[in-house]
Amino acid sequence: MLKTLSIFEPIREELGLVEKRLRQAVEVEHSFLGRILSYVLDSGGKRVRPALVILASKFHDSDAEKVLALAASVEMLHTATLVHDDLLDGSLLRRGHPTLNTSVRAEVVILVGDYLFARAADLAAATTSVPIVSIFAQTLMTICSGELGQVLDKSGGRPTKEDYYQSIYSKTASLFAASTEAGGLLSGAPEPTVQALRTYGYNLGMAFQILDDILDLTGDEKELGKPIGSDLRQGTVTLPLLLFLEAHPDVDILPSIFGEPQGGGGKIETLVDVVRRSGAIASARDEAERFTAESKQAIQNLPANEYRQVMLDLADYLLERSK
Amino acid sequence: MLKTLSIFEPIREELGLVEKRLRQAVEVEHSFLGRILSYVLDSGGKRVRPALVILASKFHDSDAEKVLALAASVEMLHTATLVHDDLLDGSLLRRGHPTLNTSVRAEVVILVGDYLFARAADLAAATTSVPIVSIFAQTLMTICSGELGQVLDKSGGRPTKEDYYQSIYSKTASLFAASTEAGGLLSGAPEPTVQALRTYGYNLGMAFQILDDILDLTGDEKELGKPIGSDLRQGTVTLPLLLFLEAHPDVDILPSIFGEPQGGGGKIETLVDVVRRSGAIASARDEAERFTAESKQAIQNLPANEYRQVMLDLADYLLERSK
Repeated sequence: MLKTLSIFEPIREELGLVEKRLRQAVEVEHSFLGRILSYVLDSGGKRVRPALVILASKFHDSDAEKVLALAASVEMLHTATLVHDDLLDGSLLRRGHPTLNTSVRAEVVILVGDYLFARAADLAAATTSVPIVSIFAQTLMTICSGELGQVLDKSGGRPTKEDYYQSIYSKTASLFAASTEAGGLLSGAPEPTVQALRTYGYNLGMAFQILDDILDLTGDEKELGKPIGSDLRQGTVTLPLLLFLEAHPDVDILPSIFGEPQGGGGKIETLVDVVRRSGAIASARDEAERFTAESKQAIQNLPANEYRQVMLDLADYLLERSK
Repeated sequence: MLKTLSIFEPIREELGLVEKRLRQAVEVEHSFLGRILSYVLDSGGKRVRPALVILASKFHDSDAEKVLALAASVEMLHTATLVHDDLLDGSLLRRGHPTLNTSVRAEVVILVGDYLFARAADLAAATTSVPIVSIFAQTLMTICSGELGQVLDKSGGRPTKEDYYQSIYSKTASLFAASTEAGGLLSGAPEPTVQALRTYGYNLGMAFQILDDILDLTGDEKELGKPIGSDLRQGTVTLPLLLFLEAHPDVDILPSIFGEPQGGGGKIETLVDVVRRSGAIASARDEAERFTAESKQAIQNLPANEYRQVMLDLADYLLERSK
């Protein structure tokens, strides 16, 4: 059963149809493969990206079937990137579910990811809109080249805040922005509306990732469905740590952690604890809040319908969740 | 420098433009990544697939720019699948070049493949034709699900000839057929022409892979750019071996090879030698010849221009090459 957010109530039915569409798309002849694909979709999150597509399509007339295809495409693309990500990171848990790489060989994981990319492209084509296929392809390029940049540059010293923002744009905000832009475009909304929707999606995505990175340090292991400090364990430096190091220029703790096997053992716990008790968490939240404020600002002039309200509520919900 | 086939002379200039387009598509900000992408393209083959796109577009008026985008897209998709394939197979050499996985970490190889998929999708979108994007996505699904089927079913006993044909369709003929179909479609050719072109591509692709599988046993290591019997070493049973086993039902040599570490050491050489000296090679060639005859038959009623002649010559060339 899909657990989505209560604020998505006005589009609950449509999210159910997206779910159906996703299931249809992974019904394949090969039953073992079908089970793998279903498992991967079941480990999915709250379907925020398809919700963004649907919401963004509500400011103009739109073809419901095409919107569903786009919403499913975006979620499928997201799922494909997660499958490869978990393999690259060696992650064992995602949202409390064992990742695919805990149960099948790496070669199967790679091919399942590729297959999901293909399915996502097929769903994008089902919108019969060439600009939307272009946005789809460009976003996938942004995601991949961002990850490649990170993998190739790793151990190249402490990243700057600009590096961090670039990386969360590639990783998260690019697909959020693509979802709202494409949703608007598909509805035939005028260019300023599409631009406003894109700006909303971009800023919401930036805030989403910052807040996710905060939760990685402050959250509850059970709720997160993965160990606290997972980013640090994987050598990923996020905003709270960057802000902590900015406020404590004398501490150069990174080499001592990343230089050691298994991320420095107990040192991670100590560092997480120190950062949690510092002002860095509050400062990171301030930055996230600036992005949510920007996202709400962007759609201020759109028609004040119930869908715009959901979009405003979503920004608030994200901030609330990370408290 | 691109080494292509002399029979491609009538489209030499266009193949040069495809090459340019491919290079442009991998010019990226990150210089190390750019070098990796160029390297991967340099290890490319004879650009048969882009040639098929161009040739297939010559039976009706066509937009040269869009044909180039499609031709580049098809080659990029092919390259992406090879990058992941070489990683899955643990191949060290392809066409005499060390594969990417000999020089960079697996995570980079995975992401480079993903990036190339995205680029290929972007080039497909540049045709501004939705049916072509659909063909693109469907073909990628066929390729991935074929490989997944193989990986998931491995060690499930001796494959049948039907399994073999299904697998070479997924692996090779599907993209050949997509290339000629999409080339025809993009030119706006009438449906019977598009269908004839697709049938040509399908049959040519089937023959191409059978002949490639024969060369894996009979070819010259230097020319192949990889060791003889690579398929067997990777546990892939191809047509010559299937035909050999059909003619010698008393021999059940497969378990004794695949059951041992490193594919049974010297046993591979012995088996290659036995199969080479048997009638299985000639029988496999007969099957390939049936497919090339079908491919030529399919385009018999197309206008007898120089491009159709290249397509007929290509079928003959493939047969000749494997002698």
